[in-house]
Amino acid sequence: MGVSPSVLQAAEQTYASYTADLSVAEVVYAEEVALALAMYQYEAQEEVRRIARSYASLSDYDTQEICRVAGFRSTGEFAIRIAKGIHQNMEFLRQILPMLHEPAQKVNTPLHYRVRLLLSELTRDWAAEGEEEREQSYAPLVKELPSERCRVLVPGCGTGRLMYDVAVLGHDVEANDFDVMKLAAANAVVSGSGPIVIEPYCLDTCNRMKRDDHIRTVTLPDCEIDKNALSRVSVNGFEFTEAYGSAEKHEAFDIVLTAAFVDTAPNVFAYIKTIANVLKPGGRWVNTGPLGWLYDGDRFNAGRDGKFLRRLELSYEELMSAISAKWFDIEVKELVPGCRYCADQKTMLDTDLTFVNFVAIRNSTPVEYE
Amino acid sequence: MGVSPSVLQAAEQTYASYTADLSVAEVVYAEEVALALAMYQYEAQEEVRRIARSYASLSDYDTQEICRVAGFRSTGEFAIRIAKGIHQNMEFLRQILPMLHEPAQKVNTPLHYRVRLLLSELTRDWAAEGEEEREQSYAPLVKELPSERCRVLVPGCGTGRLMYDVAVLGHDVEANDFDVMKLAAANAVVSGSGPIVIEPYCLDTCNRMKRDDHIRTVTLPDCEIDKNALSRVSVNGFEFTEAYGSAEKHEAFDIVLTAAFVDTAPNVFAYIKTIANVLKPGGRWVNTGPLGWLYDGDRFNAGRDGKFLRRLELSYEELMSAISAKWFDIEVKELVPGCRYCADQKTMLDTDLTFVNFVAIRNSTPVEYE
Repeated sequence: MGVSPSVLQAAEQTYASYTADLSVAEVVYAEEVALALAMYQYEAQEEVRRIARSYASLSDYDTQEICRVAGFRSTGEFAIRIAKGIHQNMEFLRQILPMLHEPAQKVNTPLHYRVRLLLSELTRDWAAEGEEEREQSYAPLVKELPSERCRVLVPGCGTGRLMYDVAVLGHDVEANDFDVMKLAAANAVVSGSGPIVIEPYCLDTCNRMKRDDHIRTVTLPDCEIDKNALSRVSVNGFEFTEAYGSAEKHEAFDIVLTAAFVDTAPNVFAYIKTIANVLKPGGRWVNTGPLGWLYDGDRFNAGRDGKFLRRLELSYEELMSAISAKWFDIEVKELVPGCRYCADQKTMLDTDLTFVNFVAIRNSTPVEYE
Repeated sequence: MGVSPSVLQAAEQTYASYTADLSVAEVVYAEEVALALAMYQYEAQEEVRRIARSYASLSDYDTQEICRVAGFRSTGEFAIRIAKGIHQNMEFLRQILPMLHEPAQKVNTPLHYRVRLLLSELTRDWAAEGEEEREQSYAPLVKELPSERCRVLVPGCGTGRLMYDVAVLGHDVEANDFDVMKLAAANAVVSGSGPIVIEPYCLDTCNRMKRDDHIRTVTLPDCEIDKNALSRVSVNGFEFTEAYGSAEKHEAFDIVLTAAFVDTAPNVFAYIKTIANVLKPGGRWVNTGPLGWLYDGDRFNAGRDGKFLRRLELSYEELMSAISAKWFDIEVKELVPGCRYCADQKTMLDTDLTFVNFVAIRNSTPVEYE
């Protein structure tokens, strides 16, 4: 993956710079990624033990019945098959995050969900069964790209499918994500050392239609990687407003594509201003995604960085008003119900999101720096 | 609400019997209900403070913008309006649970979600905006009732709309729920001392379409209460398998109606056997609801009662096989996608459930007692 730094380099640099000139938040984040991985393994082991305990304590009739309905020879089989999935996932995770094995500290926060989300996001971005979600989230963005080669920014690039698809079309892409774990995973997929097999849902034992829905494997990627396209991509793992809010990045891009990114903002006004900063007049900001306002500053970084304690949970109407206040004219806006984000295609419990999709055109009002 | 004990009496008895002959689990549960209420108030205050802090720390431009997009005179207005909703809800909750003010102990578990769920369930059961959910969950059950008067059991009756609707049709209903908070709330609604006004979603500040979606009020009930029907209902707050698994309740009912109940089971085989016990041969078990397996024994009651440590998360296929194994013939089974449970009608994030609906006919195979 071309230019500099590559996704893995970005991850390594972010982690390696523990004592260097990184913001406190980034160091804390890298620490938490390491911890998340450790917690995932721990939680998975606990979960397997919990299942084993439950099954072991059944009466004779119940034991016989649960083996019969599942077609298992022994009650241990259910837990063992999940443990195999965890093992498979840990193999992959250790490979993509070789430098993130031993967390420097323990914090009392459930972080394993980040690893589960990473595996789901890889499925969304790079597996055949993610195609429906990519159609909802990425297709409306890609169709706004001009035919001539242009400079595209993809903030919140995550596990990287959108930035890759844009590069394949011949554009120059700069992509950014605070989550180094996702960047490393993106790198593993596109570096193409062979197909990756994971079991993203192996711990999701509820809401199953069929016995083995949760332990099905998913293979990545679902396409042949275009190595030439990668030379047109550069990626970094820095905090978005810091990396793109300065004069250095002023009018550096023709188009900004955001998918499920706006609602990661602690302060959405700062995101809007930053996007205004990087776009040249007439440039386009195209967005898809929910308004779940996922950023959890209190949990993530309590007291360590005042900037991240805020989370402004605007409604759709308020957000549209904020975007069009100063630097943008809204060209198109649309509410799209029935959308999915990192959903398990086979589960009986889905999260049904209404996406806020819009195209905003940058006007010529200047951005002032603080 | 007739026969004995009434829902409020059941709640009072459950709580009052702290040192009496209740199972440990029930005592712990009543304690947790008290704590949940305290936690709800605490969490709500924290949430309001969090919002106030976030808004207070904004820059001048952001402060001006957030007031402009919301149409507020000051940044405090958003938090104050939520605080008013909490106040309204606490008034109602204190009224229905006068004996549950001071928890005897503090536990380090997030319990406030139970209060949020109670308010949502009241909306589902008794507000006009719950009608769509009642159509999905209760209508398929009610339509299986015979025209002649019969004895109906409603396990997991929650805030009580299903048992009430069945009684209005002229049947004799016995209803059961482990959650005394819900029973007390049901009693408050049907005792009819005037309409109840709550703001069930006032803390749900994310995923809003419009500025005031979260602080809209909901009025209960949406119908005139038929006091005669109440004389045909009796309610109790005991654990289901203990209350109905004995010879005393053998063949006591013609029909069992379960909505979102099966997946509350720690051990679903015990639920199946208990339902088999109470139904006379030829009697019907009619079910709607998801397979989310909500019972969290480890959190709820770790180590205090071995029975509750189990949770068997069967898939749909396995559950159907378990039900038809011995005591039931499945007459109809259907998977119904796109269903809702306690959903906020106005949110941009919904949980989309596939319901498992079935009618099972009790055969003549006897149930053996342990």
